[in-house]
Amino acid sequence: MPFAAEPPVINEAATAFMLIASSMVLLMTPGLALFYGGMTRSKSVLNMMMMSFGALAAVGIIYVLWGYSMSFGNLQDGTSDIAGIFANPFHLFGLGDLTGPDGPRLIDPFGVGVFIPEYIYVGFQLTFAVITVALISGAIADRVKFSTWMTFAVIWVTIVYFPLAHMVWGGGLLSGSENGLSAKLFGATDGVANVLPIDFAGGTVVHINAGAAGLALALVVGKRLGFGKVAMRPHNLPLVMIGAGLLWFGWFGFNAGSELAADGVASAVWLNTTVATCAAAIGWLLVEKVRDGHPTSLGAASGVVAGLVAITPACGALSPVGSIILGVVAGGLSALAVGLKYKFGYDDSLDVVGVHLVAGLWGTIGAGLLATSTGLFYGGGWDQLVLQILIALISLVLSLVLTYAIAMGLKATLGWRISEDEESEGIDQTEHAESAYEIGGFAASSGRSTTHRPAVPAEQAEGANA
Amino acid sequence: MPFAAEPPVINEAATAFMLIASSMVLLMTPGLALFYGGMTRSKSVLNMMMMSFGALAAVGIIYVLWGYSMSFGNLQDGTSDIAGIFANPFHLFGLGDLTGPDGPRLIDPFGVGVFIPEYIYVGFQLTFAVITVALISGAIADRVKFSTWMTFAVIWVTIVYFPLAHMVWGGGLLSGSENGLSAKLFGATDGVANVLPIDFAGGTVVHINAGAAGLALALVVGKRLGFGKVAMRPHNLPLVMIGAGLLWFGWFGFNAGSELAADGVASAVWLNTTVATCAAAIGWLLVEKVRDGHPTSLGAASGVVAGLVAITPACGALSPVGSIILGVVAGGLSALAVGLKYKFGYDDSLDVVGVHLVAGLWGTIGAGLLATSTGLFYGGGWDQLVLQILIALISLVLSLVLTYAIAMGLKATLGWRISEDEESEGIDQTEHAESAYEIGGFAASSGRSTTHRPAVPAEQAEGANA
Amino acid sequence: MPFAAEPPVINEAATAFMLIASSMVLLMTPGLALFYGGMTRSKSVLNMMMMSFGALAAVGIIYVLWGYSMSFGNLQDGTSDIAGIFANPFHLFGLGDLTGPDGPRLIDPFGVGVFIPEYIYVGFQLTFAVITVALISGAIADRVKFSTWMTFAVIWVTIVYFPLAHMVWGGGLLSGSENGLSAKLFGATDGVANVLPIDFAGGTVVHINAGAAGLALALVVGKRLGFGKVAMRPHNLPLVMIGAGLLWFGWFGFNAGSELAADGVASAVWLNTTVATCAAAIGWLLVEKVRDGHPTSLGAASGVVAGLVAITPACGALSPVGSIILGVVAGGLSALAVGLKYKFGYDDSLDVVGVHLVAGLWGTIGAGLLATSTGLFYGGGWDQLVLQILIALISLVLSLVLTYAIAMGLKATLGWRISEDEESEGIDQTEHAESAYEIGGFAASSGRSTTHRPAVPAEQAEGANA
Repeated sequence: MPFAAEPPVINEAATAFMLIASSMVLLMTPGLALFYGGMTRSKSVLNMMMMSFGALAAVGIIYVLWGYSMSFGNLQDGTSDIAGIFANPFHLFGLGDLTGPDGPRLIDPFGVGVFIPEYIYVGFQLTFAVITVALISGAIADRVKFSTWMTFAVIWVTIVYFPLAHMVWGGGLLSGSENGLSAKLFGATDGVANVLPIDFAGGTVVHINAGAAGLALALVVGKRLGFGKVAMRPHNLPLVMIGAGLLWFGWFGFNAGSELAADGVASAVWLNTTVATCAAAIGWLLVEKVRDGHPTSLGAASGVVAGLVAITPACGALSPVGSIILGVVAGGLSALAVGLKYKFGYDDSLDVVGVHLVAGLWGTIGAGLLATSTGLFYGGGWDQLVLQILIALISLVLSLVLTYAIAMGLKATLGWRISEDEESEGIDQTEHAESAYEIGGFAASSGRSTTHRPAVPAEQAEGANA
Repeated sequence: MPFAAEPPVINEAATAFMLIASSMVLLMTPGLALFYGGMTRSKSVLNMMMMSFGALAAVGIIYVLWGYSMSFGNLQDGTSDIAGIFANPFHLFGLGDLTGPDGPRLIDPFGVGVFIPEYIYVGFQLTFAVITVALISGAIADRVKFSTWMTFAVIWVTIVYFPLAHMVWGGGLLSGSENGLSAKLFGATDGVANVLPIDFAGGTVVHINAGAAGLALALVVGKRLGFGKVAMRPHNLPLVMIGAGLLWFGWFGFNAGSELAADGVASAVWLNTTVATCAAAIGWLLVEKVRDGHPTSLGAASGVVAGLVAITPACGALSPVGSIILGVVAGGLSALAVGLKYKFGYDDSLDVVGVHLVAGLWGTIGAGLLATSTGLFYGGGWDQLVLQILIALISLVLSLVLTYAIAMGLKATLGWRISEDEESEGIDQTEHAESAYEIGGFAASSGRSTTHRPAVPAEQAEGANA
Repeated sequence: MPFAAEPPVINEAATAFMLIASSMVLLMTPGLALFYGGMTRSKSVLNMMMMSFGALAAVGIIYVLWGYSMSFGNLQDGTSDIAGIFANPFHLFGLGDLTGPDGPRLIDPFGVGVFIPEYIYVGFQLTFAVITVALISGAIADRVKFSTWMTFAVIWVTIVYFPLAHMVWGGGLLSGSENGLSAKLFGATDGVANVLPIDFAGGTVVHINAGAAGLALALVVGKRLGFGKVAMRPHNLPLVMIGAGLLWFGWFGFNAGSELAADGVASAVWLNTTVATCAAAIGWLLVEKVRDGHPTSLGAASGVVAGLVAITPACGALSPVGSIILGVVAGGLSALAVGLKYKFGYDDSLDVVGVHLVAGLWGTIGAGLLATSTGLFYGGGWDQLVLQILIALISLVLSLVLTYAIAMGLKATLGWRISEDEESEGIDQTEHAESAYEIGGFAASSGRSTTHRPAVPAEQAEGANA
């Protein structure tokens, strides 16, 4: 039980760590906006970035209203959840009850005696929900109505993300609790499954989930005009590199912060995260060098992300050398996987499937091979590996099916696509009335004359004409 | 009294937190340089960024020399201040006395038993002075002499910022001390005012102050050539988004760090800061959608900043839901307010007034409505609200009048404006002899041929010609 | 001895601090990629960034395999090193032994009773090795084979960096141990030299080392086509400013983190780092103003880096005012020094020598003048100054000679230079098959038609043509 009878004592070092770690994870979403934004064409970079910023704004609010309640509200007061799938959305609605007469309440989510203020636990988890939604947007660059995207974000995070977060981390069906899948398959001792599922920081909840959702959206939304016929090169690779750098930095908060304490495990996680990422960059560049003759900067940035994705579930279970192996395979696999969309004809524009789904699956399953305590390669037998494959596949199918249903519903109602004319002209101009760049006399995204367009914000131009 | 008789014990967790928080706030000034820089035209981005970097360089040095002494020097040894307005600038001149025989001295500014090294308290406060000066520069983009700006920075921070920081946070006239305004109006108990002014992290000292100063400067300096006639669009919106992202990240250090401890309040502040900012982005985008038909990326970035500004004074006093309300109003208000400059004809180029003054006033006054303990909407009566209005208006008038006087003095002596020819050509070229971009054969800021201009730095080109 | 007989207790605040500090230092390398990348011409920015990212990927892996063992492996178990030059590379190969039966092992590298997990000590040190290698790349912009650079990184970090890190920080020849140079020159008491060399965070190991290596490489590799004849202006100065901002932020982790504890010294280091950097920016801008008539944004960014470099060795030994003096001299000196390459005819393209070598030498030697306890100007006599000059010169010569030898070896085998045609066309295109920018119809780096080039990644285009 995470709450002690005696008034618990705050762990200030853990609190300091979580305050900063949460800030770092929040920065990942603007970082992702740059990473994705740089990869689009110059006529759609703002829309791409707005999908991240919009997800951040909407999900941030929702998380406080009912997201935390659905995901983790049951941790408090021993409230039971609903069939192991989600907790009561109204139990802590708006979080008004987190401050008691003695000030902000403390929580010890892992029951290990490390108490932190529940507000920062909420904040930390909030940033995870935000980035997961934002990740999906890479699959549908350049072509969807901003209003439909925002509607999707609200529905999807509620129906798909919060339940999955509860199932894996909130004591639900995919957790190691006595009511979870693992306990049913492999038995439990003292209320804890004999084989604990390994997902340290979100291989299933974040990456497989976002990757599968991206695939579903790409299928429902359809291809960009000219997909597979016209080269669609990244318009600003330094922007991609800035994004990759900020993502890596923020990811330390994501992975090490998931320990919820500044300790030896968090330190091992930090090092494993770093070396797996280094190795994945090398893995991706090697595939490019052998296959195409040239290692690219896009490959380096993508390899960095693939490595960060793969080590996310595994970072607390591997040795540094195991992390290097996991990483180099992740980089190589994803480098190969990003070509699949041309083969199968789905337009996962910025490779959410190739990077997040593939590396997320590999990281989750690879933990069953490389975990130093229970992995197959370390003599741990098959149980862990089987369990890892199961939680990976269940997350994949759940996200794919639910997202597909949500996406079809939105297609039938609001509609996803902007018109072909609008797509040709550029979505920045048509959805946001903006051009990303106005440098040296040219505008980035419009064939129209821009000299007569109003300055931003719009009412300034009205003033200007007055 | 912040210093105990017994040798105090350092709070290492708070120290770790403040070391990182200070680093994050320092990053806000380069972040602001990007946020502002992206909004200018491409021929003046470097000058815009230089105003931030220049303020950082000058104010950083001054803070150590006499700024800390003027603002907080009296906290040490119970030295009295001067009429509640500022402390003796020479008391800790150069900070040589902060290391004693037992090493770096500790301080407990709030008298709550949390001791941190005074050096990092200085460092944290230094970053606040820096960003406040840098914020002002947005009001006078594209048109002022760099040397006049640097002179202004030195004078303004000394005459306006340090005293206001002392008055609000250093136990002066606008603080809750027994000699302050509140104690005089509402009485005091045991040396502390019965109604404590709420300004957690700088609604008055930083945002109302910078916003009012920006207004004064815009009035004195005058309009850009073509203001109100020619559209002046942001030249690089992804740069604006990077800046907004870094500002948000740094603002966690700003707001949560203002607790000076890693505790439950800092955690509540973190969450309130996040959700108010999310809500403000939504608020701004809704106004744009309704009014102009299009939510813009500039609106999202501006809404983020408006939300961060508004929650700054209030972040320690509100609930998460109260923060959402404060934020959505802040975003909406500022979205409407940025049009005022066209109506009233002052060229606050990058909307320092519309964002920092308006959202700063709203956040400071809104805290009197929404504070869970004393706010009007929570049954706290009118006292807190009246006090909030008073400290907001006093800060506004003080900054407006003093800044106007300083600006007029500089106008009469050094002069503010570059020549019209120079402004047409572009201030990057004329004040800094640089062009922001040299991409694909064009230069960003010059009508002149650039092929014969010296490379940077200049003496390299001399070498080149030798 | 860093390991106690009794099981040591983790310092969680120090661990939290080091987890974040390490993350910040890691971010410096992407920050450097931007800082350097913005300074190149637009046809070679990606290659410049790839040299940083490539160094990060390669050195990160190597550090875990044998780098930590060579540098600090002897701290554990009292193992002796090899002639005071490096430790056994195989002692902790792969770091498998850092987790014992009680979990991740703790270490107290300074023997002061502050124990942190050894994993994060490894991580922190790893980031130093990475950035040092990346720094060198600025000397050889635009013209070297990526494969030769990667090979160089692996060899150089092993032969030059790891031994120097061991000598200065691992108890070797340049440390204050009883077997070190200082003990031999000035005697030792209780196994510690009477005069302790001052290099708090890497003036010798990082900056003199990288600067000297840059000089050696520039000499061996030779000049860019058109060096000294054609102006080679920075293509994107806002990118340089972003990089400088991120470097400054990360540098707090670098300098304050080198205390390995969140205490008063780390706080003094934070403040000294800030004010020295401010002063150096002012120093550089003053030289520009006087000499060229214009303070530039490149000067401000370069001054920031020069200040950060100079304060790196000295930050723990100076007062704030001493730091201001050190900084302003550093900025002025480096502003003058960057012109030397034209005088002497070596093409240190992005001024690794002028900034890192010159400011690194000044900071290391200046600490002998300005250290409050032992500096000449503070009545400390000549011993400290002589020692500082010695460790600076030894590091310089060691790095210069070894790097020159490695570079000549690579010249004779793999070769350094791309062809003249490739260099003219642009190294981004020829080494990486990419163009940094594709904005508004033009590509940044190619004279070739880009419309028929494959999209990235390459196999996507194969799909596209299918």
